[in-house]
Amino acid sequence: MSAPRIGIVGATGAVGREVLRILEERRFEVAELRPIASRADGRTVPFNGEELPVVAIGDAAFDGLDFAIWDTPDEVAAEWVPLVRDRVLSIDNSAQFRLRDDVPLVIPEINPDAAATHSGIIANPNCTMMTLILPLAPLHRAFGASRVIASSYQSTSGAGVGGPAELFSQIDESAAQREAIALGQLKVSDPKAFTHPIAFNIIPRVGGFDGSGSTSEERRVALETNKVLDASIAIFATAVRVPTIVGHGISAWISFDAEVTADAAREVLAAAAGVLVEDDPASNRYPTTLAASGGDKAIVGRIRRDPSDARALAFFSTCDNLRKGAALNTVQIAELVTRS
Amino acid sequence: MSAPRIGIVGATGAVGREVLRILEERRFEVAELRPIASRADGRTVPFNGEELPVVAIGDAAFDGLDFAIWDTPDEVAAEWVPLVRDRVLSIDNSAQFRLRDDVPLVIPEINPDAAATHSGIIANPNCTMMTLILPLAPLHRAFGASRVIASSYQSTSGAGVGGPAELFSQIDESAAQREAIALGQLKVSDPKAFTHPIAFNIIPRVGGFDGSGSTSEERRVALETNKVLDASIAIFATAVRVPTIVGHGISAWISFDAEVTADAAREVLAAAAGVLVEDDPASNRYPTTLAASGGDKAIVGRIRRDPSDARALAFFSTCDNLRKGAALNTVQIAELVTRS
Repeated sequence: MSAPRIGIVGATGAVGREVLRILEERRFEVAELRPIASRADGRTVPFNGEELPVVAIGDAAFDGLDFAIWDTPDEVAAEWVPLVRDRVLSIDNSAQFRLRDDVPLVIPEINPDAAATHSGIIANPNCTMMTLILPLAPLHRAFGASRVIASSYQSTSGAGVGGPAELFSQIDESAAQREAIALGQLKVSDPKAFTHPIAFNIIPRVGGFDGSGSTSEERRVALETNKVLDASIAIFATAVRVPTIVGHGISAWISFDAEVTADAAREVLAAAAGVLVEDDPASNRYPTTLAASGGDKAIVGRIRRDPSDARALAFFSTCDNLRKGAALNTVQIAELVTRS
Repeated sequence: MSAPRIGIVGATGAVGREVLRILEERRFEVAELRPIASRADGRTVPFNGEELPVVAIGDAAFDGLDFAIWDTPDEVAAEWVPLVRDRVLSIDNSAQFRLRDDVPLVIPEINPDAAATHSGIIANPNCTMMTLILPLAPLHRAFGASRVIASSYQSTSGAGVGGPAELFSQIDESAAQREAIALGQLKVSDPKAFTHPIAFNIIPRVGGFDGSGSTSEERRVALETNKVLDASIAIFATAVRVPTIVGHGISAWISFDAEVTADAAREVLAAAAGVLVEDDPASNRYPTTLAASGGDKAIVGRIRRDPSDARALAFFSTCDNLRKGAALNTVQIAELVTRS
């Protein structure tokens, strides 16, 4: 494909804007870049020094495009992606199509070949799953993972732009009453983005609950990892919201088919694409979510063998949920598609 | 024992002050309450409407006491507790003596009988371990736990009064540069209480590292749970610091000897002492760390069976690390000792 004509649907949202910045950073050559949003209203978005006019979503908005990157709520993707499927390849960041058999779920460092078999839609995976799978995939290929137990530490930006805004407003509101916070008597006005106050709090819920007591986020981590990597791995996830702005963390314990040492795991991870090993406790080197923010890789450390089980290993991984967890991966898929 | 004469060593610290408040709340009858600290300096602490003069630590400070509650750094307890052991029973909240064979480690809801066999020292357990063991103990006794995988969400007050102060100061400092935070470019002045900035960050390190790559906190969770409950349970913990003020959280996955359902687990937990079940996702009821703050129990919810293993169950537990995780439990031990 020569320089493509690309639509960015949801170009005015947090992830859409990040996609534009990353396309600039990576000097992605385009014949046309067309920002698309629910309404135009005379808005523009900056790209390569120009202000591009926003086009309102509609049939004509997709005319002549080679592909579109979708950063919209699930319901927008559900309605529009199927309507343009015959004309334009969609690289979709919603959860709507990820588990469908005819839709490849692609992480270019892990399963780039899957992108070749699309039939009009390529899905981008969940950001929490991304934090887990970047280090898990090379370890699985080297040692054969059979079971994963994972708990997440998810930033408020995972809930959209309203998440950080709510955290900041609660922090500001409560600055005058810190003694009350310290005593657990914090009163903040109606939480909206989250079900409970998020300032100075830990909320063990991300996504909606199903009948089994798990959340949609927890199911995604398991099912999307199974789809990209191996359906036979038993994955149990607990998704937890924490009072940070950007960067997700995952604490993972993995049981393998054979014995594995921390040194052997570090060696595999050091050679893996999309992963940065930070694992030197003596020098205070281990992943933090802020260290991963703004970066393109998952940072992995705290690599330890379980003393009670020579086949089990733990790690802590952090990843920028807006970049590699969302925008960057869709741009990498766009690069794959353009090269092919 | 009639109304005892009690010393509170470290009475001017965060946990020491909490002990005084809890003794008042519970109308604990004392013949004398003597606040003891590293230096007196004419300081007083409030108790039952009076201002009690602080006594400087020294041999004479313990004259005539029935027992002393210790809320001091490990090194102070290491030096002084053995010196007074023949005269005064010590209820010690440091990590110094917890694992010694001749020192019972006591949680009154779980192993009250152990307190009877002391020889001058009764140890109070670690606050993170407390968050885990309060729900784990009744489940283990009902169903037989064989393996526990746990990840913690620990508040800054677990690092002493300097922890919350550092979090607040970093939040204030960074209020002017929130865009920079959101982009992962936060610059805050030298972290002291923690090894990395804690505002808007997740740090997977609590305590000091040993040669195996685990931290002292992670070892305590495992070894203290083994001592109180059952040495045969394989426990793997990851200890993580989060930007909250008070209240620790634990995400736990447990493998049992036999099949167990979430309903059966809820029934056992509902009848357990020291535990409050909050587990109704449809009504947004699950534990948060703020909900546990100021309370006397561990809150447990998100109780789910692992779909891939009928013998495995997960829960999320939260507990006030300064109260039940520290001050309250020592007062409960004092009540046990006074009644006996």
